[in-house]
Amino acid sequence: MKTINVGIIGAGRIGKVHAETLAFRLPRANPAVITDMNQQAAREVAACCGIPRVAASAEEIFADPNIDAVLVCSSTNTHCEMIIDAAAKGKHIFCEKPLDHTLARIDQALAAVNRAGVKLQVGFNRRFDANFARVRQAVASGEIGTPHLMHIVSRDPAPPPISYVKVSGGIFLDMTIHDFDMARFLIGDEVEEICTSAAVRVDPEIGKAGDVDTAVIVLRFRNGVIGTIDNSRKAVYGYDQRAEVFGSGGAIATSNVHPNWAVVSTGENVRRDLPLNFFMDRYTESFAAEMRAFVDAVAEGRPVPVNGHDGRVPVVMALAARKSYDEGRPVKLSEIG
Amino acid sequence: MKTINVGIIGAGRIGKVHAETLAFRLPRANPAVITDMNQQAAREVAACCGIPRVAASAEEIFADPNIDAVLVCSSTNTHCEMIIDAAAKGKHIFCEKPLDHTLARIDQALAAVNRAGVKLQVGFNRRFDANFARVRQAVASGEIGTPHLMHIVSRDPAPPPISYVKVSGGIFLDMTIHDFDMARFLIGDEVEEICTSAAVRVDPEIGKAGDVDTAVIVLRFRNGVIGTIDNSRKAVYGYDQRAEVFGSGGAIATSNVHPNWAVVSTGENVRRDLPLNFFMDRYTESFAAEMRAFVDAVAEGRPVPVNGHDGRVPVVMALAARKSYDEGRPVKLSEIG
Amino acid sequence: MKTINVGIIGAGRIGKVHAETLAFRLPRANPAVITDMNQQAAREVAACCGIPRVAASAEEIFADPNIDAVLVCSSTNTHCEMIIDAAAKGKHIFCEKPLDHTLARIDQALAAVNRAGVKLQVGFNRRFDANFARVRQAVASGEIGTPHLMHIVSRDPAPPPISYVKVSGGIFLDMTIHDFDMARFLIGDEVEEICTSAAVRVDPEIGKAGDVDTAVIVLRFRNGVIGTIDNSRKAVYGYDQRAEVFGSGGAIATSNVHPNWAVVSTGENVRRDLPLNFFMDRYTESFAAEMRAFVDAVAEGRPVPVNGHDGRVPVVMALAARKSYDEGRPVKLSEIG
Amino acid sequence: MKTINVGIIGAGRIGKVHAETLAFRLPRANPAVITDMNQQAAREVAACCGIPRVAASAEEIFADPNIDAVLVCSSTNTHCEMIIDAAAKGKHIFCEKPLDHTLARIDQALAAVNRAGVKLQVGFNRRFDANFARVRQAVASGEIGTPHLMHIVSRDPAPPPISYVKVSGGIFLDMTIHDFDMARFLIGDEVEEICTSAAVRVDPEIGKAGDVDTAVIVLRFRNGVIGTIDNSRKAVYGYDQRAEVFGSGGAIATSNVHPNWAVVSTGENVRRDLPLNFFMDRYTESFAAEMRAFVDAVAEGRPVPVNGHDGRVPVVMALAARKSYDEGRPVKLSEIG
Repeated sequence: MKTINVGIIGAGRIGKVHAETLAFRLPRANPAVITDMNQQAAREVAACCGIPRVAASAEEIFADPNIDAVLVCSSTNTHCEMIIDAAAKGKHIFCEKPLDHTLARIDQALAAVNRAGVKLQVGFNRRFDANFARVRQAVASGEIGTPHLMHIVSRDPAPPPISYVKVSGGIFLDMTIHDFDMARFLIGDEVEEICTSAAVRVDPEIGKAGDVDTAVIVLRFRNGVIGTIDNSRKAVYGYDQRAEVFGSGGAIATSNVHPNWAVVSTGENVRRDLPLNFFMDRYTESFAAEMRAFVDAVAEGRPVPVNGHDGRVPVVMALAARKSYDEGRPVKLSEIG
Repeated sequence: MKTINVGIIGAGRIGKVHAETLAFRLPRANPAVITDMNQQAAREVAACCGIPRVAASAEEIFADPNIDAVLVCSSTNTHCEMIIDAAAKGKHIFCEKPLDHTLARIDQALAAVNRAGVKLQVGFNRRFDANFARVRQAVASGEIGTPHLMHIVSRDPAPPPISYVKVSGGIFLDMTIHDFDMARFLIGDEVEEICTSAAVRVDPEIGKAGDVDTAVIVLRFRNGVIGTIDNSRKAVYGYDQRAEVFGSGGAIATSNVHPNWAVVSTGENVRRDLPLNFFMDRYTESFAAEMRAFVDAVAEGRPVPVNGHDGRVPVVMALAARKSYDEGRPVKLSEIG
Repeated sequence: MKTINVGIIGAGRIGKVHAETLAFRLPRANPAVITDMNQQAAREVAACCGIPRVAASAEEIFADPNIDAVLVCSSTNTHCEMIIDAAAKGKHIFCEKPLDHTLARIDQALAAVNRAGVKLQVGFNRRFDANFARVRQAVASGEIGTPHLMHIVSRDPAPPPISYVKVSGGIFLDMTIHDFDMARFLIGDEVEEICTSAAVRVDPEIGKAGDVDTAVIVLRFRNGVIGTIDNSRKAVYGYDQRAEVFGSGGAIATSNVHPNWAVVSTGENVRRDLPLNFFMDRYTESFAAEMRAFVDAVAEGRPVPVNGHDGRVPVVMALAARKSYDEGRPVKLSEIG
Repeated sequence: MKTINVGIIGAGRIGKVHAETLAFRLPRANPAVITDMNQQAAREVAACCGIPRVAASAEEIFADPNIDAVLVCSSTNTHCEMIIDAAAKGKHIFCEKPLDHTLARIDQALAAVNRAGVKLQVGFNRRFDANFARVRQAVASGEIGTPHLMHIVSRDPAPPPISYVKVSGGIFLDMTIHDFDMARFLIGDEVEEICTSAAVRVDPEIGKAGDVDTAVIVLRFRNGVIGTIDNSRKAVYGYDQRAEVFGSGGAIATSNVHPNWAVVSTGENVRRDLPLNFFMDRYTESFAAEMRAFVDAVAEGRPVPVNGHDGRVPVVMALAARKSYDEGRPVKLSEIG
């Protein structure tokens, strides 16, 4: 079994998750080096995960001939530059979502990947969650017949800090991006038109920052499916992540994941504990599974399960969703690019 | 369609339920007369249900040649006497459970019914509940294979008054009697041996009255099934009425019935409203269904679905359960009679 | 207790349901007379429900001074004429939904009701269903905070015959009308704008008849709530009737109603029986409850719970939904009238 | 943070699970050496988990002064000997369940542990499962009041090979042992008396081997709680692992764990996928958690959460359960020793 030497760029929250997966759960992967603008953060992750080297910069990692693949876990505005540089050095690339906020830069990066012939996998981890994967399986296998309707509910437990909201690219590029990917994944087809209804209901500061925090987005797929995405930045009961697909042969729907499945009955009510409250807990296994898929694809020379095109389309959808909101009308994806 | 003229003996809680069913839900039944030692109670039910006549006594009803059938809803200690007198006059009989607390009297009553060739249906209404009927169907149809294990949970929302406890015949004859019937109904076979574990946990006054309020009763069926009945006089969350049968091909289990199926998620928990709290609400439809079955059996000359034998056996089981509790050992039903 | 003499116009499916409720479940109501263009149908319902008289025409009923109230259960195109005539004779009116397909006629009818000072209740029975009533209660009581998002799923088990589709007024007036009412009821506020996405997915014949069979309708309420209605004419698993409201303090969601709550586990899966498949079964209790509310309102001189305005607005919404579909854009209700 | 050097005795199924946990999930633990009578098996686990050394025998591990703790994952009949030898060398010990089939040997082993002052943790992993831990929490915190009744359902997906049944010590020592521990854990009190009803229903070969495959065991606790354990060697729908505790303030019940929480509705039924079918999948996290608890207890000099006494009592209970079955009567634990 070939071992893959991996360099990690970015030692923040998600960089650390991937480092731990490489170190403790994937015998085939060797986390060889890590870097971060905050060198102390990089050193701490290195110590915790037994990563032998902290690099001074991403360039140092790209230049290392022993590195097979890199994980781009730095801030979004650096993603495309990192991809271009890594590709130029022949590294396979795993990049967090979104690839970027602008299509021009994404297209430059994808072209660089294409020229270099390296693999690029984008971090849409939710595809690897057992619940959503089961929905996809039902659709793909025909278990529910031809799909007609699709609903995604995706509500965060709490909004991010306003400082983050301001640089996030807006809810559609920051949060709904996952749901746009999920919609394509579940239905296995492309969206043609998007119509957004949105509002500021959670926090007026989000509105002042030019963003919205509550949205219903209607999707029209090429194959005729009509879908909705329901987003809120704040569900007080925790992380609400569900999907339903309805078709000619039936329907499949997922429920939330709870820390336990005990039901308590008292004189007041019949209740269970709140669902998992944080994406790290809810999607723990999906982060490991996407990393395993990436390492396996690199090791075995197979295509990655979520490629650069899969990274680009949700950005188009996010831009269309915002344009629909701004103009109060359905927007075709072909208007965006 | 033949109409059945029915006389009702007893205008208490359950008498009124049956009167309403006859009056408002069964076009084929005509509630023609009612009586009660408390004549005012009889008059009130008569007024509410449009019953044209209040009789001074049960005898007056039995003597009326226009009456086809009678409902015995008087106190338990009068049941057998009523059955004997009604049978002597050729009336078909619906009698509330239990038939009596002593087997000798029950046997006299069943002999009288037999001699008269009238029908006797005993009020084990729970057989007619959609949930328990579905469990029976799964067992009878082989949907879960050969049954191996059976569990009944039967917990009341609150104990009856101590004054009632003292004349109730004890928990096994008063409350578990329904579960003994249910066990026979679900498995479709007879119990051979009973072993009781019981205690006073809810209210020491119940213990002082010589009774228990909490019990686990293990049943051994002739066909090898092992079953349990879980009883409590007080479930603070409401009426807890469930059953599970496990077999070689799978299992079937029922849940409680709630007034609605809404789920509320807040910052505290994910909850639903308490289950229905009162047997009148929980078993509304089963009371109507058993009465319809009785009226139809009388009108069409078919056998009743719960006959005198079905009324006798649970009393044997209740006596065995008490004997097992008193002697701290398994008791065979053949020891009782 | 005052008894209300009721005349029933229309002995079809729903007319019979209401007749049975009046006859067997509402002691306070007296179903005194029934009529139908099909006199044989009227005679049959009369016989079954003990209604003493079959009238030759609605006019005969309106002219009867002993009649306090009438139920208009005839075909939709006759509703407004019946209302106008009944109001002229001072009868209180219960009318099935929709009032009509055109606003002009509805307005004439409402004006007549207003002039006569009689009560008009419209047959939006689902408000009286325990599940939806519980959702409304959660919203009204603040149990889930300020509402932000609302979703209604309303899927029929099978499409009506094409002959009916052609005269139905289209899915929005025929089927979604209930959901438009439900949306207003649940949120307790008015909708300002509607945007429809719809398609023919179930049966091309429905498309040839100028209608659609699958739709997602986005509603913008005055109070800022964004809602969706999901409609399909064919859910193979039965009648799918659910609602969810999400707010600042939590969410409430209802599930479907099944004939029993047993869960079967076999070597294949863990399953329950299909939900109730027919609106008569699913909404049995709500039909009885709306009729009780009408009879009580008439008897006690109190306002009806679903009045003429409540009957008019969903028609406006249905017309807006169709216009939005035809023009591919959001439509304000103020554009309709 | 101190690192604990661990030696692993036994490279079978469970030994490998613990080795992987030590290697990949517990940074604080260092799996330093492994042995097995089958040296090839030991080499394979060593390779997979990066364990640097394979020892020729357990004695070699016990003699190694660098080893802090050992995991005894060899066959049951060797457990006590291993414990005695390891304790003599001052090693802390984690031993799989059951400690042994005879109390005399267990008592020798516990005495040796006591003399040596080392820690002994017994592998009752289910205590660390989130579901059962939640039930315990509800009982311990008083969330359901004073406990009155307890039910454990514990059914295996399929019986072990007959060859294993013959050396297993019987169902009570092999399978119910976990449930005996769970009963003590959930209620937090000791059992006084046990009454067993059991039968051969799954496979006559199990009966020929002198064992049973289906059982209901009633437990009487010192504090008055009455409990049941429901065991079957074969649940066709998978691993059935549930518990319920009912008390004066309410009840708590767990459900099974499924690989996903998707619900599929088709024209046939409303269903979910079968529960996890294998203890390795169902209890994955609990194996990791018990190992973490052991490593932490050793590293920090704290008491282990499941000690030698906790290992001994379930063996007493198993012997009492068998005696009760053999003699057809309730057996007090004090009769066993």
